[in-house]
Amino acid sequence: MPQNQSSILIPPVPRNTDPSRELPTPCLLLDVDRMQRNIKRMLERMGALGVPLRPHVKTCKSVEIARRMQGPDSPGITVSSLAEAEHFLEAGLVDQVYAVGIGPGKLDAVAALMARGARLAIVLDHADAARAVAAAAQAHHCRYRVLLEIDADGKRAGLNPSDPALTELARLITTSGNELAGVLTHMGGSYGCRGARALAEAAETERLAAVTAAERLREAGHACSITSVGSTPTAAFARNLNGITEVRAGTHVFMDRVMAELGVCTEDDIAISVLTEVISQRASAGEWLIDAGWTALTTDPGIGGPGFGYGRVCDAHGRPVGDLIVRATNQEHGIVAAASGRALDPNSLHIGQRLRILPNHACATAAQFDRYELIGAGCAHGEFWTRFRGW
Amino acid sequence: MPQNQSSILIPPVPRNTDPSRELPTPCLLLDVDRMQRNIKRMLERMGALGVPLRPHVKTCKSVEIARRMQGPDSPGITVSSLAEAEHFLEAGLVDQVYAVGIGPGKLDAVAALMARGARLAIVLDHADAARAVAAAAQAHHCRYRVLLEIDADGKRAGLNPSDPALTELARLITTSGNELAGVLTHMGGSYGCRGARALAEAAETERLAAVTAAERLREAGHACSITSVGSTPTAAFARNLNGITEVRAGTHVFMDRVMAELGVCTEDDIAISVLTEVISQRASAGEWLIDAGWTALTTDPGIGGPGFGYGRVCDAHGRPVGDLIVRATNQEHGIVAAASGRALDPNSLHIGQRLRILPNHACATAAQFDRYELIGAGCAHGEFWTRFRGW
Repeated sequence: MPQNQSSILIPPVPRNTDPSRELPTPCLLLDVDRMQRNIKRMLERMGALGVPLRPHVKTCKSVEIARRMQGPDSPGITVSSLAEAEHFLEAGLVDQVYAVGIGPGKLDAVAALMARGARLAIVLDHADAARAVAAAAQAHHCRYRVLLEIDADGKRAGLNPSDPALTELARLITTSGNELAGVLTHMGGSYGCRGARALAEAAETERLAAVTAAERLREAGHACSITSVGSTPTAAFARNLNGITEVRAGTHVFMDRVMAELGVCTEDDIAISVLTEVISQRASAGEWLIDAGWTALTTDPGIGGPGFGYGRVCDAHGRPVGDLIVRATNQEHGIVAAASGRALDPNSLHIGQRLRILPNHACATAAQFDRYELIGAGCAHGEFWTRFRGW
Repeated sequence: MPQNQSSILIPPVPRNTDPSRELPTPCLLLDVDRMQRNIKRMLERMGALGVPLRPHVKTCKSVEIARRMQGPDSPGITVSSLAEAEHFLEAGLVDQVYAVGIGPGKLDAVAALMARGARLAIVLDHADAARAVAAAAQAHHCRYRVLLEIDADGKRAGLNPSDPALTELARLITTSGNELAGVLTHMGGSYGCRGARALAEAAETERLAAVTAAERLREAGHACSITSVGSTPTAAFARNLNGITEVRAGTHVFMDRVMAELGVCTEDDIAISVLTEVISQRASAGEWLIDAGWTALTTDPGIGGPGFGYGRVCDAHGRPVGDLIVRATNQEHGIVAAASGRALDPNSLHIGQRLRILPNHACATAAQFDRYELIGAGCAHGEFWTRFRGW
């Protein structure tokens, strides 16, 4: 074959060979292969520990993804807003734990969702909330399913497992004709742990808090059928979950830079990224500008500190580029710089180049978008899944 | 009248007498009276300086609000995304400056908007972007309107006004048949200034950069009809705007805690707030939990530092409560604490109480919502305006 025909038969590789090259920027890419791998790994872990996963859908807010997150023994899903409860109810995912302390102002809406078929458990930790539940149950002629929130680490909400108020709250719930379904704890402090050992200890603290509270309630004569724990870091490193009936985790579906820093995953596991375009050069500073600002990436600092920035810079194929990060963001501008602070070569990138940014915090970055643009082996060109937001 | 009838004739004031008491939480309230006052003040300032306002609609992203932001002499609007350009074009606001450096990947969409009637100016500061514009103009048989971005303070984008590349870029634009409409500068560094004097100096630096660049272009034979500057802080404190043809400001419509810290407004001027409900108590820490987390308030730190937090806590009527702030946020939880760090009285708030949170950064907090719930003298019960997002 004559040499000069090769360029016709084997066309030169274009600058962007990525399937996302036609998409407008910024947009949110979802690598479905990585997502499936992350889901499988978590379900296998839960299988090994003998506890079903009740996936938290606050990270994905997508029916297509929530369905894929469930294992064969999953009792249902975990939601963080009544908007999620309603969307997933409409999609047939009726068994739900609304894992945020219930506000009295939301009890009418919860009753309406139950009347539409939701098997929705609510969470509380305060006698005034229990009294509001009692009053609303009477007003709506309904029976609320209640989980008591237990505090494992003093970081957010919940009663200490040894608090005398625990059995008093249980009594308030059951004597008003409502159902005490069990206890729930979330080890928020696990996000401050690094490495397998610290996370395994956090998981054990979380497990013990839930089991201790459940035992106290059972001793006081309450059934307490659910003992629910969870976060992605503790789920990934728990050594045993004896006495636990379900685990709530959600970030594992996408993973993010915080999870990678904690040792829960590697950068290669991060399934979502923001596709962006280089729009200008800050030649004197050795930096570049991209069209992904905080509207796309959020101002979530992740673990924070110098050199962490607002996202990790990859090329259009998803391969990390040197130590490049998004150093700073404005509303629609991101500044790309070296984590080390050194000035970048004037030819390191080019105007119009497409990059992908790995998020600090998957829940936050995904929330900035209304859809996932699908990439991966089995995805058709232009395929996407929608996501929703609001309350 | 017998004493015991008074409770029938004069009913006790309910806990929440606020017009927003029926709204689900969290939601975004817009005090239309405050907004109108903020708009009027800025238009009066521009009138006194003799320069028209081209309001930036990135903060409001609402047609109803953008229309009210315009003065009788406003030449059009400023947008930060092509989604804004399209929405406002459909609403008849055709004269637009897209004030983010143009990415080559967006030139097809810009041409399509121009074909639909948009008088849309784009911004660039790099020869490769100018070459992309030349190629796209040829491909689409269109003529782009281009503003050269000028750097006033080294914080983000733009050419130094004395950079030899300035006239070279102008030549690239005009010789390819496109229109050099003028210059644009944004003094991002003004957000780091405090007080009238520092902001007036920042405004003068911004003005000088734009005027110097425009003069150089005119000397080189270019018309350069637009010299555009702007940000809310510099607009509020500029002493003169000689040589400037339009000012871009947008945050002034709502104002926020950052603007109050800079001395641009007072807390009483802040027109948007997040309505939230108290959902639990952290009695041991002297703190409370509300149902507004970072999905509602964002993680934008504002000016940052201890005691600033993620929002200022007001009662349901909008009156600040002591020194209460939102100290920390999770996805759907906010922690309310005293800025001083002291433990709050156990009876300082109560479960189910409605509060309003003043935002750190109006552009960011408003972006978390799809609508504004209107409050104020002339607003009907349940009235709202929609807003949009995306790119």
